[in-house]
Amino acid sequence: MKVSFTSTQTPKTKPEDSQLSFGTQFTDHMFLMDYNREKGWHDSRIVPYGNFSLPPSTTVLHYGQAIFEGLKAYRCPDDTIQLFRARDNFNRFNRSAKRMCIPEIDTDTVLEHLKDLIRTDREWVPSSRGTSLYIRPAIIATDPYLGIRASHTYRFFIILSPVGAYYPEGFNPVKIWVTSDYVRAVPGGVGEAKTAGNYAASLYASEEAQREGYTQVLWLDGKEHRYVEEVGSMNIFFVINNTIVTPALNGSILSGITRDTVIQMAKKQGIAVSEKRISMNEICDAHEKGWLSEAFGSGTAAVISPVGTIRYEDRVLTIQKGTAGPVASMLFDEITAIQYGEKKDPFQWTEKI
Amino acid sequence: MKVSFTSTQTPKTKPEDSQLSFGTQFTDHMFLMDYNREKGWHDSRIVPYGNFSLPPSTTVLHYGQAIFEGLKAYRCPDDTIQLFRARDNFNRFNRSAKRMCIPEIDTDTVLEHLKDLIRTDREWVPSSRGTSLYIRPAIIATDPYLGIRASHTYRFFIILSPVGAYYPEGFNPVKIWVTSDYVRAVPGGVGEAKTAGNYAASLYASEEAQREGYTQVLWLDGKEHRYVEEVGSMNIFFVINNTIVTPALNGSILSGITRDTVIQMAKKQGIAVSEKRISMNEICDAHEKGWLSEAFGSGTAAVISPVGTIRYEDRVLTIQKGTAGPVASMLFDEITAIQYGEKKDPFQWTEKI
Ligand SMILES: Cc1ncc(COP(=O)(O)O)c(C=O)c1O
Ligand SMILES: Cc1ncc(COP(=O)(O)O)c(C=O)c1O
Repeated sequence: MKVSFTSTQTPKTKPEDSQLSFGTQFTDHMFLMDYNREKGWHDSRIVPYGNFSLPPSTTVLHYGQAIFEGLKAYRCPDDTIQLFRARDNFNRFNRSAKRMCIPEIDTDTVLEHLKDLIRTDREWVPSSRGTSLYIRPAIIATDPYLGIRASHTYRFFIILSPVGAYYPEGFNPVKIWVTSDYVRAVPGGVGEAKTAGNYAASLYASEEAQREGYTQVLWLDGKEHRYVEEVGSMNIFFVINNTIVTPALNGSILSGITRDTVIQMAKKQGIAVSEKRISMNEICDAHEKGWLSEAFGSGTAAVISPVGTIRYEDRVLTIQKGTAGPVASMLFDEITAIQYGEKKDPFQWTEKI
Repeated sequence: MKVSFTSTQTPKTKPEDSQLSFGTQFTDHMFLMDYNREKGWHDSRIVPYGNFSLPPSTTVLHYGQAIFEGLKAYRCPDDTIQLFRARDNFNRFNRSAKRMCIPEIDTDTVLEHLKDLIRTDREWVPSSRGTSLYIRPAIIATDPYLGIRASHTYRFFIILSPVGAYYPEGFNPVKIWVTSDYVRAVPGGVGEAKTAGNYAASLYASEEAQREGYTQVLWLDGKEHRYVEEVGSMNIFFVINNTIVTPALNGSILSGITRDTVIQMAKKQGIAVSEKRISMNEICDAHEKGWLSEAFGSGTAAVISPVGTIRYEDRVLTIQKGTAGPVASMLFDEITAIQYGEKKDPFQWTEKI
C-alpha cells in the first residue's frame, strides 16, 4: 500500500483550458509499479513524468503484450474533483490482464494510488465545462527476451492528460463507414480485451474510411461479416421504434463502461433497451421503413457521439437529417451532468478524491 | 545510404558456443534509423547496443503498431559468413508494414546496412554446427500521442543475438495441441502480417497447451474452427501417402520463408507437394487409415521440427512412433547444409557478407 513520492524539480506550464486537445499534454507526475515473480507487484511510486529506458529486446515492442484503460476525472462546480466509474475500469483492466496472461492488480490499492496521483497534480485538472483529466493506466511486458511466451516482468503505469471539450461548438454528428472487408475481432480471439494489438489491427480500415471522408469504421462480426459489433473506440446504439438497440456483448466487443452507463440511464428514463445480435440488413430495413430515428456511439472520450451518416456497401443512410437526435441529446446531458457533479448521482458512479 | 558509426567503448564478453540460448544475449552494436514525415527514413546509424528512451505515451506501448522479422546468418566451414534469404525477409517486412500503416523501407539499402552491422560484430557469429546469428529487424511507432491513428514517427532497429543449436542432441519431436476454442487470425484480419499483437493474442492458448504438457498450439481457421492454419511460430506440413501437404496461404497464415524453402527443396528432391485447405478431420482420417506418415513444422528458429504427437479434442494422434521421419530428416539435412555453406546453393538463397 505504501507509495514513495519524488516531486518534480521542473514543473511544466499548465495549458489554458482553451488550448487543450486530446492525449498530447501530460501532467508533472506519473504513477509506476513493477512486477516480477519473486516480489509480485512492487515498488509503487509517484515520480516526475519522464521517459522509460527500455532495451530494444523488450517483449512489448515485439509481441505486443500490453493492456490499457481510459477513464476520466472531472472538476465539479464546488471545485472538488471526482472520478467516474473508476472501479469498473480497473475491473475491466483485470479481465484484459487475464486474457493476455498479465498478472492482475489489486483494484483497491491501485485506486488509492490513482487518487494520490491526481491529488499531486490536482492543479492540472481543467475546470471549463467539457474539459476533464484523461487517465491512462497501462501494463507493458518488460522481459528483455525474444522468446515468444508471457513475460515474467511487467511495468504498470498511470499517466494523466488534461483534455479539451469534445464538443466546444455543440454536438457534432459523425459519419461512419461499415467495413465488410476488414475484421477487428472474432469469437475465440482477443476482441473483448483492451489490448494493444486490437488497435493496431484497426488502422488500415480506418485510413481507408478517412480517405472516403468518414470519421470512423463500424466493424461487423468476424465470422459472417453481417452483424454489427462496434465503432473504432465506441460502442454503437440505434433508436428503432423508440427502443434503444445495441449489439449484445458476445466476447468480441469491448464491454464499454459508457455503454453500460447509457443502458442504465436510458432504463431510468423509461426508455426500452434491447441488447441483441443485430445485422446491417436489419438496420437498413429499419431505415427504409422510417423506424430508425437515431444512431449514436458511446465512449469515454466523447461520452455520446451522434451518428449522422452510415455508409454500408453501396448504401448511404442519413439519420435524423444528419443532426443529433433527442435521445442522444438527453443521454449526453444527463450523463455529463452526473460526471461534472451538477446533478445527484443515484447510480453511485462517481467518487470524490 | 550513408550510415554513421559509433563504436562501443565497453565491448561485452562473447559467450561460449555451448552457453548460447535463444534471444537473451545481444551483440555489441545495433542498427537504428528514424522516420518522420518531413525526412522519411533518416539518420541511419550503427551504435552501441543500448536502451531506448521512450515517453510513457509512445504509441507502440498502447496500440501495438509494430512489425518485426526473424532471419539468420551462418558461419561457413571456410569462416565466411552468409545470410539466408534475407531479401525475402525484408520483402515480407514491407508487406507487414503496408498492412499495419507503417512506412516501407528500401530493402536494398537496409540489406547493406545489415551487412555493415554484421561485419562490425562479426566475431559474435558463433561457429559450431547448429549455432547461428539470429537477426531481429523491427519497426515501432514512436509518436508521444494517445490518439488512435497511425503514428507519424517510427523507429527501425536491427539487433543481433548469437543463438545455440536447436537440436544439440539430435532431432526432438514436439507435441502439439490443436485448439478449437481460441483463434489467432481470421480472413480480413492481420494474421498474414508479422505484427506484435498476433503474438500477444497467442499466449493464452499456448499457456493452456503447456499446462497439458504440449509444446505449441496448432491453430485452426477463425471462421469454422475446422481447417489447419499454422503452429505458434511455424508453418505445418503433413506427409500423406508420400505427398507433402501444407495449408495454402489464405491471408490469415504467415507466409513462412522456411515454408517456401521446404516446398522448393521437396520439389527438387522429387517429392510431390500439395498446398491446399485441409481440415483436422482429414488429418485424423489419414492417420486412422495409416496414410499419415509424418508431420513437421517449419520456421527460422528450428528449420524443421518433427511433430510426434497431435492432440485434437479427445483424440491423440501419435505419428511415426513419436520420432522424426525420413522426409523431415532429409529436408533438415539438405536445407541446413545450404545454410551452413556445406553444399552448393542452386536456389540462390544465400548471400555472403
Ligand atoms: C474498441 C472500443 N470499443 C468501445 C469503447 C468504449 O468504451 P468505454 O465506454 O469504456 O470508454 C472503447 C473505449 O475506449 C474502445 O476502445
Ligand atoms: C506465426 C508464424 N508462423 C510461421 C513462422 C515461420 O516463418 P519463417 O519460416 O519465415 O521463420 C513464424 C516465424 O517466425 C511465425 O511467427
